[in-house]
This record gives sequence, structure tokens and C-alpha cells, in this order.
Amino acid sequence: MADSQTNLAWSTLLDLAGPGAKHERLIRALRASVRAGRLPTGAALPPSRTLAADLGWSRWVVTQAYTQLVAEGYLDARAGSATRVRWTPDTPSALPEADPTPPAPMRFDLTPGLPDLRAFPRARWGDALRDQARQVTTADLGFPPPGGHRRLRRVLAEHLRRSRGAMAGADDIVVTTGVTDSVARVFRAIRQEGITRVAVEDPGWVQLHMAAREAGLTVVPVPVDRHGLRVAELDGDPAIRAVLTTPSHQFPTGVSLSAERRAALADWAQRVDGLVLEDDYDSEFRYDHRPLSAIQGMSPSRVVLLCSVSKTLSPALGIGWMAVPSRWRRVLLASGTARSAPPVLDQLAFAQLIENGGYDRHLRSVRQRYRSRRAALLHALRTRLPACRVSGSAAGLHLVAHLGDEVDAADVVAAAATRGLRLTGMRTFQVDRQQPAHSLVLGYGNLPDAAVDEAVTVLAAVLQGL
Amino acid sequence: MADSQTNLAWSTLLDLAGPGAKHERLIRALRASVRAGRLPTGAALPPSRTLAADLGWSRWVVTQAYTQLVAEGYLDARAGSATRVRWTPDTPSALPEADPTPPAPMRFDLTPGLPDLRAFPRARWGDALRDQARQVTTADLGFPPPGGHRRLRRVLAEHLRRSRGAMAGADDIVVTTGVTDSVARVFRAIRQEGITRVAVEDPGWVQLHMAAREAGLTVVPVPVDRHGLRVAELDGDPAIRAVLTTPSHQFPTGVSLSAERRAALADWAQRVDGLVLEDDYDSEFRYDHRPLSAIQGMSPSRVVLLCSVSKTLSPALGIGWMAVPSRWRRVLLASGTARSAPPVLDQLAFAQLIENGGYDRHLRSVRQRYRSRRAALLHALRTRLPACRVSGSAAGLHLVAHLGDEVDAADVVAAAATRGLRLTGMRTFQVDRQQPAHSLVLGYGNLPDAAVDEAVTVLAAVLQGL
Repeated sequence: MADSQTNLAWSTLLDLAGPGAKHERLIRALRASVRAGRLPTGAALPPSRTLAADLGWSRWVVTQAYTQLVAEGYLDARAGSATRVRWTPDTPSALPEADPTPPAPMRFDLTPGLPDLRAFPRARWGDALRDQARQVTTADLGFPPPGGHRRLRRVLAEHLRRSRGAMAGADDIVVTTGVTDSVARVFRAIRQEGITRVAVEDPGWVQLHMAAREAGLTVVPVPVDRHGLRVAELDGDPAIRAVLTTPSHQFPTGVSLSAERRAALADWAQRVDGLVLEDDYDSEFRYDHRPLSAIQGMSPSRVVLLCSVSKTLSPALGIGWMAVPSRWRRVLLASGTARSAPPVLDQLAFAQLIENGGYDRHLRSVRQRYRSRRAALLHALRTRLPACRVSGSAAGLHLVAHLGDEVDAADVVAAAATRGLRLTGMRTFQVDRQQPAHSLVLGYGNLPDAAVDEAVTVLAAVLQGL
Repeated sequence: MADSQTNLAWSTLLDLAGPGAKHERLIRALRASVRAGRLPTGAALPPSRTLAADLGWSRWVVTQAYTQLVAEGYLDARAGSATRVRWTPDTPSALPEADPTPPAPMRFDLTPGLPDLRAFPRARWGDALRDQARQVTTADLGFPPPGGHRRLRRVLAEHLRRSRGAMAGADDIVVTTGVTDSVARVFRAIRQEGITRVAVEDPGWVQLHMAAREAGLTVVPVPVDRHGLRVAELDGDPAIRAVLTTPSHQFPTGVSLSAERRAALADWAQRVDGLVLEDDYDSEFRYDHRPLSAIQGMSPSRVVLLCSVSKTLSPALGIGWMAVPSRWRRVLLASGTARSAPPVLDQLAFAQLIENGGYDRHLRSVRQRYRSRRAALLHALRTRLPACRVSGSAAGLHLVAHLGDEVDAADVVAAAATRGLRLTGMRTFQVDRQQPAHSLVLGYGNLPDAAVDEAVTVLAAVLQGL
């Protein structure tokens, strides 16, 4: 190939601009020319003396650059022969695609699942992080303990005993990155121990069902009625030895598991040597009476209690935890490389926030906020949509609005989207999505107070326009 | 079934101490008595009026408590009958075990893998976290994007182009919780696409081999010599279509992949439509010349470049990232629920630290620190153990000390432990651990400068005492 390239004006061919020492700029420029095909495979480079003269730089600069690019595999230098390009261009891959454009933000978003992000205690959380970055021990900056930092585990156990009537000590707590992570790890552990079928609530939070399937489990949907999960149906399939449930506030129907069924669930778990995964996702928010204590407190050896800050602070924090029966904790922590836990400083900041009472103060403040917002939403629905029936306990961050048997919720969701109102139909949460659904799951956690009435007005107009 | 319990002094039986309103204290006390078996299953509780009189509290307090405990499933109330305990005690589980005691800290710890934790930029990192907690947009406090925050991806792509000669844009970056997480996700993705066998370096970082096995891949060890991975051996097994390698500084031998083999590796990947996982674990630290650019820059469509802050800042931060060919990025992000990424604030804090030059300043400062420490360690070894041969490039945070063919490194490790010196033998990193090893992998990243000479003195004494 073209030895004649030695006659080119190298200072023109190469883009020597940019920061750094001369040899660094030359390395970058040569590498770029090779990659771009301007210097094709096999092409000879000028002797270092010639290139140096052409550039008006020292020969040392050129030999430094050649040596580096030979070591990197872009050039080939053999004694008594010219330095040549050895690199073969990478097969052109498809151009990197831009991220799929996120859906345009709507005027009103009633998607369930988010807390009020405007209420996030920025200053308190930021200060806690900074305090911990300054105070953390050097040892704690090493490899993090897989089950979570002991200080946070101790604080969380105390918090669960106090606020959820749980029975747990620091050694029963496993810190995770959230409920999805917790559930995925429990599912992998029980699959490994021979459990093959897990019951789930239908309707329910279907993303967690995916975690069960990924772990190799068969998902068995069990219906929910106004008393919660139909616990008796678990006995219909003796291979079911685990169940994922939201007893304190069923998602999405909003009912609470009745006292009879709570007892029946504990009995079932004991009888079949099974495991109950108690997803306690929004138990902090109960507006009519004290929240029921967790079932875990009745059966700590058969129940995993699943918690996170996603509904109390923000899902962006990536902090979750679970109280795990000791038998399962051993399996969980022994298994494999997936020992996810939040960064140690985040764990310690959360521990600080609980210890100094900041977390409880935040919960009290947002509880009051959600209680009023729920009342405002109920008022708006009663006023503007008197035919619409609402169900679910006075709790949490969402409610269920029944539109009537003649209305397909999917039509309402579609029509509302064209008017800047994002809604979610019940069908999203049904395991079998063949049946049309007649109700909406309205999340008000992140809906500004000022928008409540207007959002319902839009919904009323949509329903009228169907 | 003692109805006579109504005659007990309830104020004595129940522990009503503690914080909270009267009915909350009563709920707690009754629940604790039921759990502890002091109120056995079937036992009748006194009528609310009686208990109220006995406690000297209002009847409202008692009915509140009974109602709550009935709802929770601890008590059973039927019209015309006494309120009774319904709860059956949980099968006593084994007492929660204390965490296994961590090994006693030793005077000198030369385990490879840690950076200098005393050099962690506490103030800079803490301030960045706090700044981000205050500045983050409300939208960014919602559900985090699975591949990482766009701002961090953009900053990392620029950083990789500049410091590693990589070819990557923001859309090619996936943010993870570290190299183990990155590798595990790539392994799951390639297994899903039909790749069944992955080559790994022997010796190598065996924890990552575990991630391959967990993903269902067969691990094929390939030997390493003084030119790095023996790339030619990949052709011996046509089912191998992925390889995990540390070209810039092989772990643990410390050699760099030769220019010939870099080119051969890129050729192989193109020929077999394979994937190279380039673990760039400590490329920031090179003391003799400029670091070689990443192979990813030569073959961006066939190489995943794996990075983290574990060796530059701290493994406790849980921040990693990878540059991924677009084809594989799609598979990675589409697959399942395991979309681990660090908390959004940590991602933004790291972006801020790179943007304001703080990360580069930190790297320059610790690079200087490690360079001197390495020199001090070499000096001490030459002085006190002249027969010991050292190998590995002038790079990274560890070196290999060859003790001689007659010495079994395992004996040295054991004897050193009794003298407060923690060492790691080469066998720890060999896939086939049957052969005795004659060398130690000495990590000096987290060894205080003042301890270097003394640690080598202890090692010399250990070798003499064998």
C-alpha cells in the first residue's frame, strides 16, 4: 500500500488540536485517522524523523506516539521495515439509538405508585448524606457487608417492632435496593430449596410476578375479594408453598385482609411449611384508625416482611429491607453474587434519619398531606361523578373508582390521554387481561393538591364524551 | 382456658410502660402477652368494663385495644361471648444467629483489591451528595431510568473517550452497581441469546466466574503467560463466543496483553461474532508510561468495557458502568427486573465530581501516592528478601512476589496469619486449585506507607521460620 503517503502534508492530514502534551495530541490524532480509515490497514507511516520534520516537532514526540500506538495494537513496527497500520476497522455497528423518547409529560398524572416527590426532605436527606460521608469509619469504606450495614439493620429492626408490631432483631434484617430486589432474592432462594409454585394476588403488582417467573417459579393467581386474598384457595394446590400478599392494604383493590383470613394464612403457612411474602408497601399511611400490625409479628418464622422507602421518601433512593426468618436468611446470604445493597453512605444516612426522629416527622407530615388530598379527591368524585363508586380502605396513595359495568376502563384511559390526563385501568394489574375492566386505579400520591379538582373535571368530561 | 384470669390483677400482668397513648400501650402489652404465651390460645379476656376498672382507665381505651387486636388476628370477639385469644404461637424458630464474627483485624493486611480508604475524598463526596439532594429535579426523584441517569452517562462517555481512548456516547453507557453486577448482567444477556461457553483468564478474579455459572454458562479457563491471555487457545473451542479478560493489567499476574494479542483478540471476536468483556479494573494507575487505550476503542461493536469506582474511590459506593455495543444494550435493558443502578443522587454526585474536575484531581493525587508506595514495597522486598522475584507491570494496586519453587505459598499464608500479617496466595485466583502455588499476590493499595517496611520484615521472618 501507499508508501507515497510519506509525501502527504501530515500536519494537514492530522488533527493535532486539543489539550495535552504534543505526543498526546499526536497519539490521539493518529488513532483517530486509523479508526476513521483515513490511514487504511497496511498503510506505511513515515519514518519518525520525516514526520517530526514535517510537523516541526522533535523526533522524540513521534517515537513516543508510535511506541504507544504499537503497544495498543493500532500500528505494527518491525525492525528494518516501515511502521504500518495493523488495525482492521470495526464492523460498522448500527448507529447507537437514542433513548426511546419518554412519553410526553401530561398535565395530570394519576399513575399509582409514587409518593409526593415535592415533599421529599431534600435538606434533611442531603445533610444526613454529608454527615455520613464525613463521619463514616475507614473500615466502612471497604467491601460492604452483603446483608446491609449493622447500624441500619439494628435501627430498622427497632423501627419495625415499634411501628409494625414486627418481631425482628438486627440479625433478621436484610437490606436491599427495594421490594423488587427483595422479592427476586427470596424467590431465587425458595426455588433453590425446591419450592416450584408461588401464589400471587389477582389483581396485584404484576412486576413482582415477573420476578417469580425469572426465578423459575410458576405463578398461580389467587382471586381477591372484599376480605382480601382468598386464603382458602391455597389449599387447592398442595405444591404451592409460598404466597406473595399485601395484607394491610391490598394492591390495587385497597381492601385489608380480614382477621379470619390473617389467622388462616398463618395456619396455612405452618401446615405446609410454607412462606408468606408480606409486601407492606404503604402501611405507613392509614387515615381512619391505627394501621394493623404486620402478620410477620404473628409468624416470624414463616413470614418475610418486605419494606422500602419508595412510597415514603422516593423510589430514586433505592433503599429497601426485609425481615427474614433465620432459616431463609442463611439461604439468601449464601446464594451467589447478587448481594445488592444500597451504598453504605446511603444506608447510614437513612439510619441517621430514623435515629434522630426525622423519618417519623416526615411520615407524620406527609400522612396529613395525603389524608387531606384523599378527602379532596373523594369530594371531587362525589360532586362531579356522583354515579362513580369508590372502594378501598382510607389508606395509602391510591383508590379504586368503579365506572359502571357498561364502561370499559380502557376506553376511558385512551380518551383521557388525549386530554392530558394519565390514568390506569384495573386491567393493568390483572393476571388474566382478557376481561375488560370497569374500574380505574387512581394514584393521588404525587398529584398536586391544586390539581385534584381539575383532574376530576377532565375525567368527568371524558366519561361524558364516550 | 382459665376464665378465672378475669380475676388476675391485670395491671400487674400487663407491661403498660413505654411511650404512646394509653390504648397504644395496652395494645402493645396485650400483644406481647399473647405472643409470650402468658395469655394462651383460647384464654378469655375480661369484659372491657372489668379491665377498664382494673386498670383505672376509660372503657374506650380497652375497646379500642380489643378492636385493634381482633382486626390483627390476635383476639377473637363473638357477640354474646367473651373475647378470647385466637393466636397460635409461631413454631419456635431457631434463635436468630449472630452474624459470623468477622476475622480479627490483622496488624498488616495485604489482601489485594482495596484502594487507599484513608484517601477517600470525604468532604468533596459529601458536599457533592448534599448539593445534588438540594438541586435534583422533582422528576428525577421518581422511578429511576434503568440504564442510569442521562447526565452521568453523558459525563462517563466523555470521560472514557478522553482517558481510555474508548468509542462511546451517552447511549452506549449502562450504569450499574459495580463490575460484578455489570458482568452478571452481560452473562445473563448472552446466555439468553444462545451463547453457552465463556472463556476466562486462569488465574483470574474467580468471583466473576461464579457470576457466569449462575447465569448458566460453562466457564472455560484459558491460561495466561507473560504476554497476557493466550488468545490463540480461544480457537480450540468453537462454542466459545465470549471471553472475560483484563488486558491493560491482568489480574492477578500484572502483565499487559501484548500488541499482537490485542489485535488477535479483536480479530477473533469479529470472526466468531463474539463478545469481549474488557475488565478495566485499575487502568487509572500506571506508573511507567501512559496507560494503553482500551481495546473497546478498536472494536466498539464487539467489546463491553467494564469500569467502577471500587479501585479509585471505594467499593462501598457501589457505582459501576459499562460501555456496551448497541445490540447488547438493547438485550440488557429489555431483560427482566434486575435493573440495578445506584441511587440517583449518588449518580448525580459522581457526575458532578467528574464535571468539576474533582475526580481527575483525586486520581492524580492517589496515583502519586501508589507510585511511591509501590517503590517503597519493591525496595523493602529487594532489601529484606533478595531471593524473592517480583513480576507484573509498574501499575495498579498489587504485585506478584515469587517465593521459589520449593516454597508452598499456602504455608506462608498460614504462618503469616499467626503473626498478624494477612497474605493471599496465587492459588486463590486459580481455577484449578489442585497445584500448589509458589507466589503471593501482595496488595498495597490500602497498606499505610508507614507499615510497608514492617510488613515485609514480618514476611521475611515468616519465610525464615518455615
